[in-house]
Amino acid sequence: MSTTDKDWVGDPRNASPDGEFVRDTTYIDDRITADAPAGQPTAQEDGTFHWPVEAGRYRLIAARACPWAHRAVIVRRLMGLEDVISLGLAGPTHDVRSWTFDLDPGGVDPVLDIPRLQEAYFNRFPDYPRGITVPAMVEESSKKVVTNDFPSLVRDMIIEWTDHHRPGAPNLYPAEHAEEMEEINKYLFTEINNGVYRCGFAGTQEAYEAAYERLWNALDWAEERLSARRYLVGDHVTETDIRLFTTLVRFDAVYHGHFKASRNKITEMPNLWGYLRELFQLPGFGDTTDFTEIKQHYYIVHKEVNPTQIVPVGPDLSGLATPHGREAFGGQPFADGTTLPGPLPEGEGLKNPEPFQK
Amino acid sequence: MSTTDKDWVGDPRNASPDGEFVRDTTYIDDRITADAPAGQPTAQEDGTFHWPVEAGRYRLIAARACPWAHRAVIVRRLMGLEDVISLGLAGPTHDVRSWTFDLDPGGVDPVLDIPRLQEAYFNRFPDYPRGITVPAMVEESSKKVVTNDFPSLVRDMIIEWTDHHRPGAPNLYPAEHAEEMEEINKYLFTEINNGVYRCGFAGTQEAYEAAYERLWNALDWAEERLSARRYLVGDHVTETDIRLFTTLVRFDAVYHGHFKASRNKITEMPNLWGYLRELFQLPGFGDTTDFTEIKQHYYIVHKEVNPTQIVPVGPDLSGLATPHGREAFGGQPFADGTTLPGPLPEGEGLKNPEPFQK
Repeated sequence: MSTTDKDWVGDPRNASPDGEFVRDTTYIDDRITADAPAGQPTAQEDGTFHWPVEAGRYRLIAARACPWAHRAVIVRRLMGLEDVISLGLAGPTHDVRSWTFDLDPGGVDPVLDIPRLQEAYFNRFPDYPRGITVPAMVEESSKKVVTNDFPSLVRDMIIEWTDHHRPGAPNLYPAEHAEEMEEINKYLFTEINNGVYRCGFAGTQEAYEAAYERLWNALDWAEERLSARRYLVGDHVTETDIRLFTTLVRFDAVYHGHFKASRNKITEMPNLWGYLRELFQLPGFGDTTDFTEIKQHYYIVHKEVNPTQIVPVGPDLSGLATPHGREAFGGQPFADGTTLPGPLPEGEGLKNPEPFQK
Repeated sequence: MSTTDKDWVGDPRNASPDGEFVRDTTYIDDRITADAPAGQPTAQEDGTFHWPVEAGRYRLIAARACPWAHRAVIVRRLMGLEDVISLGLAGPTHDVRSWTFDLDPGGVDPVLDIPRLQEAYFNRFPDYPRGITVPAMVEESSKKVVTNDFPSLVRDMIIEWTDHHRPGAPNLYPAEHAEEMEEINKYLFTEINNGVYRCGFAGTQEAYEAAYERLWNALDWAEERLSARRYLVGDHVTETDIRLFTTLVRFDAVYHGHFKASRNKITEMPNLWGYLRELFQLPGFGDTTDFTEIKQHYYIVHKEVNPTQIVPVGPDLSGLATPHGREAFGGQPFADGTTLPGPLPEGEGLKNPEPFQK
């Protein structure tokens, strides 16, 4: 254990020591699929495994803080998978490598009975060399990580778990828009979702300024697109909107100041601001957004950017609860025949709701 | 020189290592007065000296970056003292102790012929133990600092240099409002001018949160006061407005993010925003505000707050040039019979004007 012990002593380090921040996009990319046979996972030709869809078998490990994990939490709720895939939540901060279950009683996840998510990675690969990331889907019985490949993890909750969706669940990946969604998803990832990190973790003034320009070009593109349509693709909320939401909702609270992405606040971009408010006010979006944990995560974990580790009190976010005015575009968030999810499951409420979230 | 050399090697340090930031308010508090006899300064009973008002004898050393120095630059211009008191400008960054003349040809002030303001302090007091601050009034012939007590330095340009004021100069300290001005000046200093630093240099989360609350209470007070009147005191611009201006104009660019004073931007406070724009658009205010140097100063010098020393590109400040709407309160910036200052003197233009300042 001594190697492991040493491995997670010290501060996390995210910022590029020099030049442009490049995200590690190598993941455990197994999938959970509807056609995988029951029982043990099935080896694929590409070396990955397919695991069978099975209620009660998997636990989604997320963190309120993390925008990538937030996507999975929103989709699980919109699809009504709460009784089928359990939810474990790591706390907002972590050490050099691992998210930890410090908010849970005794500091251990109540189902996996481990204090550090790293253990579930090591159960799968004892020498797992990469970052310990959320979201991660973990097999409850073996306590092994099945996948931490967040795009397919989220997508498969939409397209593979259909037998377990609640009645009235929306179609977040409609076939007729798939091609356009893929194109925009890719653009959102490189330019916005990861673009804010490219600003904040730039190692030089030059790399930062290039990142800032790229980010704001893309935000201007989104502002323009949403001036003519209520949602990013088609007539209803899709996975693409969820991908933009989890970055936008963190923007004024974190990315604006902490990552120096401060040309404007989202509140100053009329269409993005209306769009953000509409999504925030839908079940599954605002009710899964914990601003306290979000701010604590970025401002405490990124000590190389914020050495005092002081967490801002601001900004005033109460505008998120004000009328969004997006009805003027006509249409509705979800297609006819779709229903909204009910109240949050017992025990899944936010630990730190803002006054306007109560 | 070896002691001196060692003295200024290393990074500046401003943030409190623990708890609340407390500003050193001990200064060289000599004064330049109308009734001091010509020639050498006259000793006072309190141990200070009074120096005579005399055209061409003194040089105001300021820095575009510094809000305290900015007050003196604005007042010098409104009073038309440009031909009477010369102006030297230190660059935006400095080392552990001294502002330097790194923007001047050869890196030396063209009149004092020194590279570091510290030398003028040491010429006066060889063992000067405190911070080397701007604004400082320096005797050109002896290259000695006369005073760096910024409140009296600015005030005396208003009340003691009257024989040299331009025709039509405003009265920035009208006797009938003096008592109210003193009260508000004191409040502005402790709660806002210094209040932003108390936020940014707090050493603990607790001290920061207390500082944030104090600051926003005071900004709410100012927002409320300016909802019912065009200027802070009386019917026209006074020294009190200049004191608030130099903090407000730096707020969205620096204090909001860098000092975590981020409940709102000033652009989100309708009365403060209109008031700031009106002042910014008057000669003497906006034409002495260099946002590039302001941002470089805070983000590069305060390495203990911003270790990457990356300077934000944002925010978009172009709104400062938009109509302010404060005419609705009636009245006018200066009293009847007062005129606005003319164009900036040759050589005193901003090094880095924003597009909307050109």
